[in-house]
Amino acid sequence: METLVDALLRGERRALARLLTIVENEREGMNQALTALFPHTGRAWVIGVTGAPGTGKSTLVNALTKAYREVGKTVGIIAVDPTSPYSGGAILGDRIRMRDLSGDSGVFIRSMATRGSLGGLSRATRDAIRVMDAAGFDIILVETVGAGQSEVDIVRTAQTTLVVEAPGLGDDVQAIKAGILEIADVLVVNKADRPGVENTVRGLRAMLELGHPASRSQLVQHHGQLVPVDSRDNSPADPLWLPPIVRTVSTEESGIEELVTAIENHRAYLGNEGVLEVLERQHIEIELVDRLRTALMSRLLNVVPQDAITTLIHQVQTREYTPQEAVSVILKLHDEGLSGQSTISG
Amino acid sequence: METLVDALLRGERRALARLLTIVENEREGMNQALTALFPHTGRAWVIGVTGAPGTGKSTLVNALTKAYREVGKTVGIIAVDPTSPYSGGAILGDRIRMRDLSGDSGVFIRSMATRGSLGGLSRATRDAIRVMDAAGFDIILVETVGAGQSEVDIVRTAQTTLVVEAPGLGDDVQAIKAGILEIADVLVVNKADRPGVENTVRGLRAMLELGHPASRSQLVQHHGQLVPVDSRDNSPADPLWLPPIVRTVSTEESGIEELVTAIENHRAYLGNEGVLEVLERQHIEIELVDRLRTALMSRLLNVVPQDAITTLIHQVQTREYTPQEAVSVILKLHDEGLSGQSTISG
Repeated sequence: METLVDALLRGERRALARLLTIVENEREGMNQALTALFPHTGRAWVIGVTGAPGTGKSTLVNALTKAYREVGKTVGIIAVDPTSPYSGGAILGDRIRMRDLSGDSGVFIRSMATRGSLGGLSRATRDAIRVMDAAGFDIILVETVGAGQSEVDIVRTAQTTLVVEAPGLGDDVQAIKAGILEIADVLVVNKADRPGVENTVRGLRAMLELGHPASRSQLVQHHGQLVPVDSRDNSPADPLWLPPIVRTVSTEESGIEELVTAIENHRAYLGNEGVLEVLERQHIEIELVDRLRTALMSRLLNVVPQDAITTLIHQVQTREYTPQEAVSVILKLHDEGLSGQSTISG
Repeated sequence: METLVDALLRGERRALARLLTIVENEREGMNQALTALFPHTGRAWVIGVTGAPGTGKSTLVNALTKAYREVGKTVGIIAVDPTSPYSGGAILGDRIRMRDLSGDSGVFIRSMATRGSLGGLSRATRDAIRVMDAAGFDIILVETVGAGQSEVDIVRTAQTTLVVEAPGLGDDVQAIKAGILEIADVLVVNKADRPGVENTVRGLRAMLELGHPASRSQLVQHHGQLVPVDSRDNSPADPLWLPPIVRTVSTEESGIEELVTAIENHRAYLGNEGVLEVLERQHIEIELVDRLRTALMSRLLNVVPQDAITTLIHQVQTREYTPQEAVSVILKLHDEGLSGQSTISG
């Protein structure tokens, strides 16, 4: 494992691919590798790219990648597909992209599918970002298809989040925007050569002006504390990030320069007043909570006999116990089992 | 609280509304109420309705509701909006529906938004279904906007799941289908008067024939065990549910009768060979795991001092500890704290 990590740090692509596979599938040696990598992380800029289906996220990611390559930056791409819990729906988009960017050693692309649980995907995405980060990529683009909690989770690993919209999507799209706007650091109206683009931009602007609850990036450092900023009650001394709206036609690579500038502006903003450090701490806290949840649960399943759980499930089914009562019984068994053991290692 | 539950069981709408609010917001008395309700649950048929944005799920739910009302069945509707983690995006659809179905005492509609965590939404949805179930509704329709893990979670509370498609949605839709098809018991092609409907149906049929990994409903009872059925290696003696494709134009209430029949067929199928009992046990198991996860975590946060966690977060930020190491330390503090206490109640 040590040599694999060394090879990664030397920039060997095969080591990168193998470590990503280890991390995605939670293979043996994963924790050892991540521990060895960890001191070499924290240098890449992680950009989340999300939005409803049909907005052209993949071509946008391609165009952004090319733009960063032109100024000599290396780019890692992680395409996460939370819409495909069982089969590899991410593969297709990956192939299209491959054709476009293949042969450039400054680009590395990896697709990831859900494999059963969203929690598992967050963990795998986070660790895959670390592997790419340690491998020395300047920019890591994390693209996610779909809409909902999945974005919110994945965004929690990014420093800058792009929310992509496009003119002329279905009637439910408005509902999606309401939730997703609040995680946007930069709003991208892609396919901006299509009819209806003015309406889309106007709609987004109106929603921004409505003053949604402060987003992650609209937190400001205030007397050493990170506080949410309500844009309607905002002291002029506070730095405040208002998501800009950038129009792009990613198939023609138009508007991409403006988008790169918007991302750089956001990066500069985060660098101010310790906002980035606070954001990092929040990311770490979320990660620790995720990991603790998983660790606690797998320990419980080790300690409490499966038979007891099966019996309780049956008793809930026959309405003998409520689910809450069954949980109390399991917790009691867990505590008794735990105190019966001499030492417990996490 | 007792009188509130009694009033619910007597069919009082105000008690129903109040209990739904208690359950949605985890207000005081929730567990007590749910315990009192629990013996009166398990009688409603719960139908999940999901699909990509723009497929017309809300009008379909309306049309289905009217069809059930015509045959004298009472209908509870829970509209879950996992795309709106912060603000109430579900409200709009709710109002439209209200106008359409209001004044009918055999219908009750409730919208729910995410409020921060998807896990919380699953819990709240599950408990809201129980409240409506105890209130005596024959049919409970659980509608969810969006695509991804959220559906999968919400579907885990339903007996029959409808996945709604529509012709002519964006280019990413294919990717969504791949994941969502596997949770479908009935496939609905809504807006079937639109151009491209033949393509949509053909595409769905092709994907079904591809033989995706066995879905939840494609599990069969086999020598007392529930086993997945690979449709390509399927003994003829096994009962097997293949999701039918039903075309509807919900705005004109066309195809709804066929849809109701498809749902009844699925219900009859589940009634066979103990499949429904196995499905129920799976639902309970998932619920217990969810609740245990929450209980374990909130107990940990009570036992481990916040200071210690804050220090560890800082040490991860400075790369002194890896996240895994920090988790080990916290688990150790948790176990020491737990064994230091005399009795612990879940």
